[in-house]
Amino acid sequence: MTVKQTLHAFFYPETVAVIGASASPGKIGHTVMTNMIGAGFRGKLFPVNPKGGTIEGMAVVRDIADLPRGLDLAVLAVPRDHVEPSIQALAGIGVKSVIVITAGFKEVGKDGYRLEQELKALCEAHSIAMLGPNCLGMMNPAHGVNASFAAGQPKAGSIAFFSQSGALCVAILDWALGENIGFSKFISLGNKAVIDEADMLGYLGGDAQTKVILGYIENVEHGEAFLRQARAVCRNKPVIMIKAGTTAAGAKAASSHTGAIAGSDQTYTAAFRQSGVIRVADVASLFNLAQAFSTQPLPRGPNLAVVTNSGGPGILTADIADRSRLTVAELSQRTIERLQEFLPSYAAFYNPVDIVGDADAKRYRRTLDVVADDPVVHSILVLLTPTASVEIEKTAEAVIHTARKCGKPVFACFMGKTRVARARAMLMEAGIPCYAFPEPAVRSIESMYEYYLWKNRPEPVYAEFPCDRELALKVVREHEARREPEIVEFQAQEVLRAYGLPTPKTVLARSSEEAVAAAVEIGYPVVLKIASPNISHKSDVGGVKVNLRDAGEVLTNFREITARAMRMRPDAYIAGCLVQEMAPPGVKEVIIGFKRDEQFGPMLMFGLGGIYVEIMKDISFKLAPLSRQNAFEIVREIKSYMLLKGLRGEKPVNFAALEEIILIMSQMALDLPQVWEAEFNPVLINHERAMVADVRMTLHLKEDRE
Amino acid sequence: MTVKQTLHAFFYPETVAVIGASASPGKIGHTVMTNMIGAGFRGKLFPVNPKGGTIEGMAVVRDIADLPRGLDLAVLAVPRDHVEPSIQALAGIGVKSVIVITAGFKEVGKDGYRLEQELKALCEAHSIAMLGPNCLGMMNPAHGVNASFAAGQPKAGSIAFFSQSGALCVAILDWALGENIGFSKFISLGNKAVIDEADMLGYLGGDAQTKVILGYIENVEHGEAFLRQARAVCRNKPVIMIKAGTTAAGAKAASSHTGAIAGSDQTYTAAFRQSGVIRVADVASLFNLAQAFSTQPLPRGPNLAVVTNSGGPGILTADIADRSRLTVAELSQRTIERLQEFLPSYAAFYNPVDIVGDADAKRYRRTLDVVADDPVVHSILVLLTPTASVEIEKTAEAVIHTARKCGKPVFACFMGKTRVARARAMLMEAGIPCYAFPEPAVRSIESMYEYYLWKNRPEPVYAEFPCDRELALKVVREHEARREPEIVEFQAQEVLRAYGLPTPKTVLARSSEEAVAAAVEIGYPVVLKIASPNISHKSDVGGVKVNLRDAGEVLTNFREITARAMRMRPDAYIAGCLVQEMAPPGVKEVIIGFKRDEQFGPMLMFGLGGIYVEIMKDISFKLAPLSRQNAFEIVREIKSYMLLKGLRGEKPVNFAALEEIILIMSQMALDLPQVWEAEFNPVLINHERAMVADVRMTLHLKEDRE
Repeated sequence: MTVKQTLHAFFYPETVAVIGASASPGKIGHTVMTNMIGAGFRGKLFPVNPKGGTIEGMAVVRDIADLPRGLDLAVLAVPRDHVEPSIQALAGIGVKSVIVITAGFKEVGKDGYRLEQELKALCEAHSIAMLGPNCLGMMNPAHGVNASFAAGQPKAGSIAFFSQSGALCVAILDWALGENIGFSKFISLGNKAVIDEADMLGYLGGDAQTKVILGYIENVEHGEAFLRQARAVCRNKPVIMIKAGTTAAGAKAASSHTGAIAGSDQTYTAAFRQSGVIRVADVASLFNLAQAFSTQPLPRGPNLAVVTNSGGPGILTADIADRSRLTVAELSQRTIERLQEFLPSYAAFYNPVDIVGDADAKRYRRTLDVVADDPVVHSILVLLTPTASVEIEKTAEAVIHTARKCGKPVFACFMGKTRVARARAMLMEAGIPCYAFPEPAVRSIESMYEYYLWKNRPEPVYAEFPCDRELALKVVREHEARREPEIVEFQAQEVLRAYGLPTPKTVLARSSEEAVAAAVEIGYPVVLKIASPNISHKSDVGGVKVNLRDAGEVLTNFREITARAMRMRPDAYIAGCLVQEMAPPGVKEVIIGFKRDEQFGPMLMFGLGGIYVEIMKDISFKLAPLSRQNAFEIVREIKSYMLLKGLRGEKPVNFAALEEIILIMSQMALDLPQVWEAEFNPVLINHERAMVADVRMTLHLKEDRE
Repeated sequence: MTVKQTLHAFFYPETVAVIGASASPGKIGHTVMTNMIGAGFRGKLFPVNPKGGTIEGMAVVRDIADLPRGLDLAVLAVPRDHVEPSIQALAGIGVKSVIVITAGFKEVGKDGYRLEQELKALCEAHSIAMLGPNCLGMMNPAHGVNASFAAGQPKAGSIAFFSQSGALCVAILDWALGENIGFSKFISLGNKAVIDEADMLGYLGGDAQTKVILGYIENVEHGEAFLRQARAVCRNKPVIMIKAGTTAAGAKAASSHTGAIAGSDQTYTAAFRQSGVIRVADVASLFNLAQAFSTQPLPRGPNLAVVTNSGGPGILTADIADRSRLTVAELSQRTIERLQEFLPSYAAFYNPVDIVGDADAKRYRRTLDVVADDPVVHSILVLLTPTASVEIEKTAEAVIHTARKCGKPVFACFMGKTRVARARAMLMEAGIPCYAFPEPAVRSIESMYEYYLWKNRPEPVYAEFPCDRELALKVVREHEARREPEIVEFQAQEVLRAYGLPTPKTVLARSSEEAVAAAVEIGYPVVLKIASPNISHKSDVGGVKVNLRDAGEVLTNFREITARAMRMRPDAYIAGCLVQEMAPPGVKEVIIGFKRDEQFGPMLMFGLGGIYVEIMKDISFKLAPLSRQNAFEIVREIKSYMLLKGLRGEKPVNFAALEEIILIMSQMALDLPQVWEAEFNPVLINHERAMVADVRMTLHLKEDRE
């Protein structure tokens, strides 16, 4: 059976057993029963308890073995030590899925962790989809399923929510009941021993009832699976997530909470951005976006039109929009003329359109119809201040009227609280997000526009460069065999050559005479660098001399460099000096590197050399594999990009050559999993060409990893 | 009579007349009457209307002349053309203050502007404090005053609110009624012809009923008065403001709205920060902070303790706090031991303290008491998730209990909506801000901590440097007389000398022989620069040569530079060349400049030369006069400050010398109002000394300004 079929049985069960069902109110085994009944479950429900008797009028099954074969779903609310035997018995009747509500596993320490691993192995051996342990349960209101011990029955809707925190499930459920928001699926993931966020994304991505997916996670279990599922799902529907534990304090709290390793915030930022997941920092934003995405169409461009009956809120909204990716666009001339036909002369006809404090509902409706009709406008925000003459509910009707027919996203902000309460409820009921203040409205529209751009971006193109992977692996394996974690200088140059990376002409000279011969071959001026596998920071031993113009300078400097290195690092093996071609004039230095993340694999970084990376922290990041588009972006996301583009008539650097080196590093990072981190530093680039002038690679030798 | 006495009569009137009072419901002149009566006004209220009759049982006064002499307050709701004659008549009976609700003045164009100027002159001539025109009115609920046509009577409280937008007044009033929030004073400023935000700050700063001042402004009328009042008031009580119209789109909307010039956002940011005003971007934050500041004591340090019954929300809170200026501090060992005495073993004892999902109110209370007792802790945030076993209202009581006795700020976040509604109301009633999600709670505590720091910062110290101001003014006046807007090179050097600013040794050489003599006097190597009052960008004509090492180089280059300048700029007067001492080795280049803001005066800027200012936009700003502390800060607020501090064992630059130059520029900017902008660029600085290597000043000649 495929995972998809199993998850279908899990979400749409026809037969459900509650193991540890109880007749005593307050017990979890009782709440699950009443929740299932209260949700209107139309399939067969079996309370199971060795004590027998009846629960809510149903005869209790004493033995799991008596349950029907091929049971769709079993919900376990039994003491911890009964969980494993129960699942053994359930496996015996061919159960398809289980929810383990019981706590006391990974989250309590080593013993619990071991028990959880046993459950996991058992479920995997029998292809049982297991949710939890240590979770609240799952709901599918449209199918009459509430297999949880949460208080309250949410209505059916088009929003799916999954959460690693049961407490957040509880809070959000209470909040959703208050706001009358419905769910397509509602899942408390618990410890994620079997079913994890990637499985949920995969299933919910194909679930016709789900229009928007919300998630709260503290860590990702399988980075690669998560990225693959997220990439595919975000093409079709929005995924909005909170990743908690992203700061030092948060990560510390998280690791004690679930034993999860939170991972670096940078990596998650890159993972979410590259897969199209919309990331929010707080729960309020999660819900604002859920309502926006589940009710309104996407704006097909950045132009926001604001219609208001008051100046101040209009200005505030324009400010917020101007600081966002949206544009407070000029309306077309035709629109302004049409507005002038009926609006009073003291109205403001450009955007925001201020129809003034005495505006009635009719004026709102005519204005909205004209503005919505303007092809320049991609989204509309209607502001209302409860002035004396405003018709609040009638204006809400006008907004609903326009929203229904215009095909563009329409949002409302009815300012205040008491007098606008009824109108706000009317708007929400009609699927028009309505806020008390302008900011969250603008933020929602901005997120939808960003998602529109992501959804409509061209299909990513991945390049493959010819390379001699075997040659590179040979160098790596030799280092592994010698237990040398650092691949530097001439061995590292081998790897560069294997990938066809452009490097400065370099010759290893074992003596000063060889150095002069090499310099003649390369052409003056040249660079001399100490060559030693043991000295990775060459400058620290005065091991680099640039711009040597003749044989005399080469001779003297060779002797000086090698003598100094031997004196300062008597332990090091000194092979001689590398003689290298000088960088062409007008060259710029950039750094291209990667570091492997435990969860998500190689993370590439790019920045300008020296102070820009070190002091100004002007660095951009992307996870491998990088598409051609990603390589284009990583170069342009730094502030100092302007320096590469060229100042005051200077020619831009050869960006194509630079992006190619980045793409080759991405390929190399995936080809050579033994390399834990690597840095091309500096990469020299001018308007003609780019070359990798120096490189360091660090292996993660087996023992180091454990 | 002083402004303060007049404003007292305005806010605490014993006699109030409503000019244009009406018996017809729906008319503004009727609403003002019913609002005054509804607010429980205990003084004498006079409806005035030439038609006579009665309104709400009161005899209408037909003629303003029949009102009592020395009337405290008159509220005008009459047609525009009647406003001026009415005020004339009111002046005749010695009215102390007026509110002009009537619109149709500055906001409608030139005619209105002229009329408004007449009102202003009239009021000023008779020392009448005028609010408006084009406003909603004013309220002082504790004194039974509601001199407005707004809907709804707010209760008395400790929050004062003034707003340039009447619409925002309406919205906020409705919101406050819904949230049961009271006001000490509530003022719609309207067009601010007489009473403006600076007057309000001044009055409310001394108003014993007001604990927190909120303001919404689109522009500041008098920058200097505003800064002076704000500085004084913020020492005593928090001032929280929105400045709208800070973006291009917002400013455009604002200028059409009230005819106000919005001013640059940068300047307002500097003005607010330097005077201690807490600036927020949106209305929701304005109110969150108002509640926090008006109910809780200030935290006396950054350490936030979080007590929670659930992990996820605890982690989210730790994340948010870690990204703020607050610290999720480690609790003291004694506290952890005390907690271990009664908390279950599976609780988390460090911060956030997770007392787990089965926590009852008693466990919350004991935990809160212990945590609040820890001297490490400066503020407390209590999180509650409505789990099955939680005692929601009882926990609210426990929070109130701890908050009352501990003397530290206590905030609550009861997550969800329906189940926590009652507890949330209880907390708010008891003066404990309670939020639905953690983010606004952390933001509020952070703002209070920042205000604590501001309030307790040392008194600013202003330095005064000896200078020959007359000499500087002489140079300026000569340029004014010659109508030359640019003061450059040797004239500019005069100004530097007048202020005792360190400059490189410089001699004007009229011939190549003079140049060599000067070079010998200064000492080789030297710099040669073309000297011409007409050439401000010397490099453009190849007019700068550095590092000239002997007489031969000086001779050749003098001839080359002057010949090239004559060829390229035949119009320019060439005085010769400046011979200048070379910058010492290891020198860094910084830029110190100022530009005069129409509202707030000279704004100083500081940054590292070249790319840092131009491309990285790494610049800091402060308004003059800078205190010594400000000079310390402006240097350290840029990212590239690290370069001045010195990398890799390099010595730090002489910061004292640098800060002195900045302070002298601040003094110069205030001394010489004719100078519109000036730039010391570059200022050369190393670990020993700083010197101003080049300078440009631009005058605003009279005609240019008009």
